[in-house]
Amino acid sequence: MRLTAFTDVSLRLIMRLAVAREGELLTTRTVATMLAVPYTHMAKAVARMAEMGLVEARRGRGGGLLLTDEGRRVSVGAIVRELEGSGDLASCEGDPPCPLRSACRLRGALREAREAFYASLDAVTVASLADAPARETLVLLQESPFDGEQE
Amino acid sequence: MRLTAFTDVSLRLIMRLAVAREGELLTTRTVATMLAVPYTHMAKAVARMAEMGLVEARRGRGGGLLLTDEGRRVSVGAIVRELEGSGDLASCEGDPPCPLRSACRLRGALREAREAFYASLDAVTVASLADAPARETLVLLQESPFDGEQE
Repeated sequence: MRLTAFTDVSLRLIMRLAVAREGELLTTRTVATMLAVPYTHMAKAVARMAEMGLVEARRGRGGGLLLTDEGRRVSVGAIVRELEGSGDLASCEGDPPCPLRSACRLRGALREAREAFYASLDAVTVASLADAPARETLVLLQESPFDGEQE
Repeated sequence: MRLTAFTDVSLRLIMRLAVAREGELLTTRTVATMLAVPYTHMAKAVARMAEMGLVEARRGRGGGLLLTDEGRRVSVGAIVRELEGSGDLASCEGDPPCPLRSACRLRGALREAREAFYASLDAVTVASLADAPARETLVLLQESPFDGEQE
């Protein structure tokens, strides 16, 4: 059982932005490098988080990425729920589709279980992810070169 | 968020065996075909379920696959917990590893959420998955040829 790489990258982004200092310039490239994520993946996550109203990308001098008030208040459950969606947890509609799909009791049980998973994360705020001991690690992330990928 | 294909196949197998009639001969090939799963995947699931004591594979005349008493009583949570394991839900230890992994608060929150997911499935028994309306569909599964794969 795994989250998608997209959710993983998005949450790393949100956690780093949660500890940004006033006036700190964080670009998509900077956070991608800090979080050991390819630039293109991070750019997609930034776009989606902006679309969800959680991140603002300010242009120009003194611009950069910052968490919105909503991004600071939102629960991790709300983010994960939005990004992971409500599709099936098994290959019910795969190719070939599962012959049980029309009357399957497992399908509903898995969805209920996922609801319990999301509900557990509803109690976790973005702000709390940036508490100690995470805060120090987040603040000290370095901009070191990452595997040669360049824009 | 998805279960592995292995868990999916294993649960399909268990559900079909839960409605087997006394004396019904179900081979690995038969259930693979019925459940639209490649034979090799089903053979691995049968081996693992036997190892876990949930399925018995009787050899010889009148042999075939059947659910053990334990397999009938076990919760879906116990099966999923065993098959999905306790690894990370994100790529914490990927290549490159996540720079936050040593102090990450999300990592623990995700594990707790998975525990809630498993706990929800702990309340679901294999027997209950074979209740109506699933039972009829399970009983009526046909042995139709599946995409040409042969042993």
